[in-house]
Parts: sequence; C-alpha cells; structure tokens
Amino acid sequence: MQFRLGSIGHVVTDASHDELRHKLAVSKIVIDRKFAGGLKGLEDYSHLYVLFLLDEAPKWSGALMVHPRGRTDVKKMGVFATRSPHRPNPIALTLVKLLSKKGRTLTVKGLDAYDGTPVLDLKPYDRRDSVPHLRVPLWWKKLERESKRARRSQETGSSKRAHRLGRFGSKTR
Amino acid sequence: MQFRLGSIGHVVTDASHDELRHKLAVSKIVIDRKFAGGLKGLEDYSHLYVLFLLDEAPKWSGALMVHPRGRTDVKKMGVFATRSPHRPNPIALTLVKLLSKKGRTLTVKGLDAYDGTPVLDLKPYDRRDSVPHLRVPLWWKKLERESKRARRSQETGSSKRAHRLGRFGSKTR
Repeated sequence: MQFRLGSIGHVVTDASHDELRHKLAVSKIVIDRKFAGGLKGLEDYSHLYVLFLLDEAPKWSGALMVHPRGRTDVKKMGVFATRSPHRPNPIALTLVKLLSKKGRTLTVKGLDAYDGTPVLDLKPYDRRDSVPHLRVPLWWKKLERESKRARRSQETGSSKRAHRLGRFGSKTR
Repeated sequence: MQFRLGSIGHVVTDASHDELRHKLAVSKIVIDRKFAGGLKGLEDYSHLYVLFLLDEAPKWSGALMVHPRGRTDVKKMGVFATRSPHRPNPIALTLVKLLSKKGRTLTVKGLDAYDGTPVLDLKPYDRRDSVPHLRVPLWWKKLERESKRARRSQETGSSKRAHRLGRFGSKTR
C-alpha cells in the first residue's frame, strides 16, 4: 500500500549542523503561496509541530535496530523506539517554538532540519500534547544529560558568534 | 514534488466514533511482521506518537480555512492552526498512552483512528516533547472546556458499557 505526499513549504536556515542537532537554531519556514491561507490563527499558539521530509537522510537500509542518536557506545534499539532519521517512512516530527509569523514566513526555534528541507505539515501544539508525568528509558536520560552539557557549550559558542555576525538581529529577532 | 510512503501496520479497534473522537478508546496497533523488530525498547516509554494515514477522510477539497473540530459556531481558522483531518497531506498525529506491548501488538489509549487505519510511523514521546508553559488560542480553551464535559459523560457511558460487555478485561487491561 503506497500513498503520495507533496510539500507545503520549505526550511530556510544558515545554522550549522551542530546548532541544528542541538535544536538551538532559529530557522524560517516559508510556506508556498498557495497554502499561505492555511496559516491564519497559528500565531495564537506558542509551539507547533513541524512534519518534514528527511530528504537528506540516505535511503532506508532496512535496518530495524539503530544506535540511539548514532552513539555506537549505546546499545541498539528498535527504530520505532528512537527518533532516528533512518526509518521506513522518512518523516520527521519536531516540536518548535513559534517566534513570529509574517505573511507566509514563520520564524521558529528548535527545528533540526537543513536548509531547503521540504515541509509536509504544521500542527499546533496544545495542552493535550503536554504530558507532565511520563516515562523514558534509562539510556535516554543518560544521553540527555550529556546532550545538555554539549548544548550549553554550543549555546555559549552560538551566541558569541551570533553577536559577532549580528545574527538574531531585526530579521529574526 | 511528491514522495511515496508505505504503511508499517494498522489499527484494530471496535470503539465507537464518539469514543475515538474523545480519545477515550483503548485500541490495538498491529505492526507488520517485517517491521516488528523495530519495536524493541518501545515498552520503556509511557507515551508515543502515532502517525497515521487519514484514509477515511474525504479527499482534501483545497479549502484552507476550516471550522475547528467541525464546529460551525466557531470562526473558521487556517487548516494549519487546527488538527482538522481535512489538510493538504492526509497525515494525522496523535499522542497516545502505551498500555502494553506483546509481540508486534501494542495496546494504546487515546488513539482517534478507525479500525483498519494504516499506521505510518511510531515515535517515542520524551521530555523534550513536554512543554509546561504553552499558549493556545481562546477558541481552543472554550472548545476544550466543552469537550471535557462531553468526555466525562462519554467516559461514564463507556465504562458502564465496558463493564456490561466485559471489555477492558484481561486482553486489554
């Protein structure tokens, strides 16, 4: 059984691979002119889900077990127990913060998609999506602690560079 | 630009339309034999995202403005500011609670998908997905209050019926 999908817009960003990976980047999503009318009211949400095509990932090899976050020192897990980009259907889901909406351009924080990535859908994040009591695996907690440390040092680096380059100025806030 | 997707499994449920709509239903997701290996480790999460094909929704009419939750007494909003099933790409995203995993069958609570719906992906819900401070539109809050009342009366009805029919017994917990 197969289905066809089309893109509704694309990602514009000059963030580095590390900024994207750590979800620190401020990116733009430019929605195609013909879909722009569908954005009305989105500005009343603080967060949204972005569904995008993993078109930069190599074609899925058929492997059902992957090292979480590509970390070969962590035991392999089933692909559906990870957010790995190497999955049967190459659709990514990322929760982002909506910083601003101007015409058909959204400025968002936290999108881990490369420049030019085709966007498939936007869905608003609401209170039903916010679960206060949740359970995650031990390996997730371990990787997250390490990732937080890496993010902190990356964040310091990014804001120094942003200051130097004048990024996050009037264009992106 | 068009992309092809395939299903990884399907939904099994005998819940009524109202139980599904109010996300009260306990459903099963049966993953295809060839993808079953990808489930390893999913049991360590309490919640997961289910991406599924909206194959029961009529083909998208091209309308970019919709009444939220089909409520004609609420002003139309852009389709990307709602979770309406009538959208350019017919992909739904629902957060569910994972009740159990046995072989390639998951038992979940809260999935608003009909029996037989093709499942496209499963993604684990982690702490990064849980936003404590979020903003939603006023219309959302209003509809949610009403929906909670409807859910409560539905829930009472469902559990009475479940008791009578012996559902939620040993099979689904």
